[in-house]
Amino acid sequence: MFVLNSKLAADTFLVCDLKISRLLLMNDANYLWFILVPREPNLTEITDLPFSDQIEVLREINLIARILKEELSAEKLNIAALGNVVKQLHIHVIGRFENDIAFPKPVWGAAPAKAYEEAAALELINKVKLKITNLNGTAAA
Amino acid sequence: MFVLNSKLAADTFLVCDLKISRLLLMNDANYLWFILVPREPNLTEITDLPFSDQIEVLREINLIARILKEELSAEKLNIAALGNVVKQLHIHVIGRFENDIAFPKPVWGAAPAKAYEEAAALELINKVKLKITNLNGTAAA
Repeated sequence: MFVLNSKLAADTFLVCDLKISRLLLMNDANYLWFILVPREPNLTEITDLPFSDQIEVLREINLIARILKEELSAEKLNIAALGNVVKQLHIHVIGRFENDIAFPKPVWGAAPAKAYEEAAALELINKVKLKITNLNGTAAA
Repeated sequence: MFVLNSKLAADTFLVCDLKISRLLLMNDANYLWFILVPREPNLTEITDLPFSDQIEVLREINLIARILKEELSAEKLNIAALGNVVKQLHIHVIGRFENDIAFPKPVWGAAPAKAYEEAAALELINKVKLKITNLNGTAAA
């Protein structure tokens, strides 16, 4: 059974469930930082998934990438599966700006997380969910 | 026409050309650090590629991941497309060890690169090329 890692749960907001992955928003307003977590137990690497499911995850990455670029005007994408600390497979899909606090450095460990105001997080989440509904024809709770 | 970015060229050894990507070995013996560069001009994001080519790149990532795990005994994979400094699309496929110089931190900016002895680089490159030939039935020059 899939259980979201407790550190991932503590550091993020739920956006919605996509076909394969749970979509999370990192509680760090320094960046547009989304995380995809495939909802299968015992995954560490993306290559642990059957290739057909990897393709679906790639499709989900493309969906978030499109929203980051078209809807949220991100200047650069950072897409990464690292998992050195939290072993549960999770894929970062991050929108970067040349004037963000860490650019051009990677985000990990670069600056203390800046928690969202609740209203700002909700607004962003609702915007993303609406866009997913429009692009996918399938919203999730 | 595809031209490899000059910084990528300076920092790496050529391993071989796969179907979509040029496979490079980063000249940093601190890690098992490979880089895939899709051989198309004007790419910045993986999502700039047609989805069918992205699937091929995913297949190439799986190939390198398998060699890192099975042949080179990597304990963890770090797979990432960042491109904040070098804009040309390139995908890091890195084998990590819990006792490597930066673990559990990401590799970027963590420690000065440790250049390979030429013989050690050649040995690793030949080992990887042989394994690719065996797994793929297609070697590249």
